[in-house]
Amino acid sequence: MELYSGYITKLIEELSALPGIGEKSASRLAFHLIHLPKAKVERLANTMIQAKEHVQYCKECYTLTDSEICPVCANEKRDHSTIMVLENIRDLAAYEKIGKYAGVYHVLHGAISPMMGIGPSDIKLKELLKRLQGEVKEVIIATNSSLEGETTAMYISKIIKPMGVKVTRIASGVPVGGDLEYIDEVTLLRALEGRIEL
Amino acid sequence: MELYSGYITKLIEELSALPGIGEKSASRLAFHLIHLPKAKVERLANTMIQAKEHVQYCKECYTLTDSEICPVCANEKRDHSTIMVLENIRDLAAYEKIGKYAGVYHVLHGAISPMMGIGPSDIKLKELLKRLQGEVKEVIIATNSSLEGETTAMYISKIIKPMGVKVTRIASGVPVGGDLEYIDEVTLLRALEGRIEL
Repeated sequence: MELYSGYITKLIEELSALPGIGEKSASRLAFHLIHLPKAKVERLANTMIQAKEHVQYCKECYTLTDSEICPVCANEKRDHSTIMVLENIRDLAAYEKIGKYAGVYHVLHGAISPMMGIGPSDIKLKELLKRLQGEVKEVIIATNSSLEGETTAMYISKIIKPMGVKVTRIASGVPVGGDLEYIDEVTLLRALEGRIEL
Repeated sequence: MELYSGYITKLIEELSALPGIGEKSASRLAFHLIHLPKAKVERLANTMIQAKEHVQYCKECYTLTDSEICPVCANEKRDHSTIMVLENIRDLAAYEKIGKYAGVYHVLHGAISPMMGIGPSDIKLKELLKRLQGEVKEVIIATNSSLEGETTAMYISKIIKPMGVKVTRIASGVPVGGDLEYIDEVTLLRALEGRIEL
């Protein structure tokens, strides 16, 4: 038998389809929504629809933005000859939050993963190569330090290097504040290999 | 500076206001929504609004339902002389899922908590007392086994007992499959006190 009202069941069903939301969280969310004032529920619903309608990819770097070109790419004070390549927009936000990087970005929207059947043509790679025809001096590869991220970094560097563009990779090593005792062997080895003179 | 598009920032903001959703999950959800087909986002938004519009409290037991009276209360095969009192609708669903309870329910929508300033008049208690004027033989108190749940159970039983209605409390003890070693002292003591003859 149906445990809740049909409307609630449907809402729980749709909410559980969202990433990171299981059946329990979905039902908690659904009941929360039901208890909210009608105006708030409508506002949330409209915000969702509006965001979906108005947000698009930046024609340059493929982050999400309201306009053709995102604020970073449109900013003439940013160094357009340095491109940081990232897997997704959340990674971009992580770097942009620090506010210390003056170059521009390129969002791949994924990483190469033969296991998952994601190849170079499934990410925004040819869009990156197209940008290199301009006056780009350095490409900083800041994909994740995972197997997929490393594979993607290697692949991109092999293609870009012959084009005469400097390719760098963000450092991997012991995170600041990290306790050596709890850090995996690969990271420890990387930290050793990447040691710098003081 | 704004990390994302204004629409996304607003969506993340509204999503983070939901229970159990922090800033990181909110941004993950927001990006997921942006990448969904437009029709799916609209369906989710409409489901939310519809649920809010059509769902109401059952006039009898105060669960949420599409109609005046919920399916359980409307079912004549259920034993209307036994009322199980619960803190919230998720707890009702937990019991209803088992499908072994033949009585009806009463949802308090909360528990008495002097710490949080929630008193007997803040939960659906007088609505329960009103129902007892009918032919009710037993009230099973199934509030949580927390401080608030126990307080509520004690309070309700003190009011109902003098009315000549049988009041019971669901058993507390070691959960089935539970390992004694990991169970807290209070539960162990309760399990001992509530021991039954084999």
